[in-house]
Amino acid sequence: MTRFRLTVEFDGRPFMGWQRQAHGPSVQQAIEEAVLGITGEHVTLHAAGRTDAGVHALAMTAHVDIDKPITAFRLMDGLNAKLRSQPVAILKAEVAADDFHARFSCVGRRYLYRIVNRRAPLALEVGRAWRVPVILDAEAMHEAAQCLAGLHDFTTFRSAHCQSESPVKTLDRLNVRREGEAILFDVAARSFLHHQVRSMVGCLELVGCGKWSAADLKAALEARDRHALGFNAPPDGLYFAAAIYPEDVPSPNNR
Amino acid sequence: MTRFRLTVEFDGRPFMGWQRQAHGPSVQQAIEEAVLGITGEHVTLHAAGRTDAGVHALAMTAHVDIDKPITAFRLMDGLNAKLRSQPVAILKAEVAADDFHARFSCVGRRYLYRIVNRRAPLALEVGRAWRVPVILDAEAMHEAAQCLAGLHDFTTFRSAHCQSESPVKTLDRLNVRREGEAILFDVAARSFLHHQVRSMVGCLELVGCGKWSAADLKAALEARDRHALGFNAPPDGLYFAAAIYPEDVPSPNNR
Repeated sequence: MTRFRLTVEFDGRPFMGWQRQAHGPSVQQAIEEAVLGITGEHVTLHAAGRTDAGVHALAMTAHVDIDKPITAFRLMDGLNAKLRSQPVAILKAEVAADDFHARFSCVGRRYLYRIVNRRAPLALEVGRAWRVPVILDAEAMHEAAQCLAGLHDFTTFRSAHCQSESPVKTLDRLNVRREGEAILFDVAARSFLHHQVRSMVGCLELVGCGKWSAADLKAALEARDRHALGFNAPPDGLYFAAAIYPEDVPSPNNR
Repeated sequence: MTRFRLTVEFDGRPFMGWQRQAHGPSVQQAIEEAVLGITGEHVTLHAAGRTDAGVHALAMTAHVDIDKPITAFRLMDGLNAKLRSQPVAILKAEVAADDFHARFSCVGRRYLYRIVNRRAPLALEVGRAWRVPVILDAEAMHEAAQCLAGLHDFTTFRSAHCQSESPVKTLDRLNVRREGEAILFDVAARSFLHHQVRSMVGCLELVGCGKWSAADLKAALEARDRHALGFNAPPDGLYFAAAIYPEDVPSPNNR
């Protein structure tokens, strides 16, 4: 048995989400079936995060155990050949330690959210960004966002379906910046609650268009109440950007 | 009658190209039918360039004459509403002078070409970039490309179907640079021959992977012979990026 670590890019539009579901296609199922096609093995893929329907990934990390002898390089090329008709690409396959776990070994997760701030609809980026037609103040959004950084009870920004044991999380980074007509959110934490990024982006959009002040956002956080939420941003603009593992961060403490 | 200048973004994948064709959908037809739906008028749209099947636009310029009184703002919103089911967006609509002509008044055209230089297939950018799996030397490509800048007979880089009167053109700029795994071509000229950008990119890819030297590229140009061409890059990575008009370039000479 060899454990492989996979880095996966996908377009979330045709999928019900990462996780295997009875009622529709998932990224997990697509890759598991590709493994079956190559090795004849019924495997279970484990991922750093479980993305919702319509959410994309620039670099999701997953692991899978395979009995049949195969090199990482042949596994990557074989999976990509099997996945050809679907918007899923294996960017990297590496042999991992037997105790590497894509979900439980993960010490950091990064998301990117992209708004396109313009009146015209999206022709090239439809389903791949959130179009907001009213002019947004990205600096005000960035400043207000800083009250969310650090250790907080994020109940306000948590979905009713969230399975996390505790709503208390540490948000390491929430940077907002404008790049031309795009507004980019760079969000990092050890882990997130279900819908947390989309909930935070939805509220920050209210700040950007002047409906909420920075104090309103702070009050929503402190309410620790889902009903204080402005709204969820759509999945279209959300990208799982990176999973970080101790072995990826060479430091005196990790060696 | 009012002449309107339109700035259009489109994803070229579902279209046979910009120009109206008997045998399939075109961007021109999509917009002309949207105008018909709003004003009841059968109009003809004129564009700065005629893109091929699968080629995209970040900002194509077109003009159209409309009899019915309508503001530029309502025209833009109305067209976008009618075009909702197609990947075509009107970014801007402006009232133009009666002698403005999107094609004949145009004094500069800019194209962007994008290669994604990696082994893995494209999940997020499929149909929107050219994936090249072998490592390319972008600096060598940029240096070699400079022999194409300036006034030349571009017969080598011209399609058999090209309708231009002369193969002699001035290429104002062909810059190649790497940005992460992307290789970006920034190409500018007053006008281009049919397939010129894709032909030049195709040959520069040969330089990038070491199959051609800079001298080979120069020899191909000087051959003035279509048979000296390496090959055409696919349409996927090509974007019409900008059309430039005298009124857009305020200078003492233009005022």
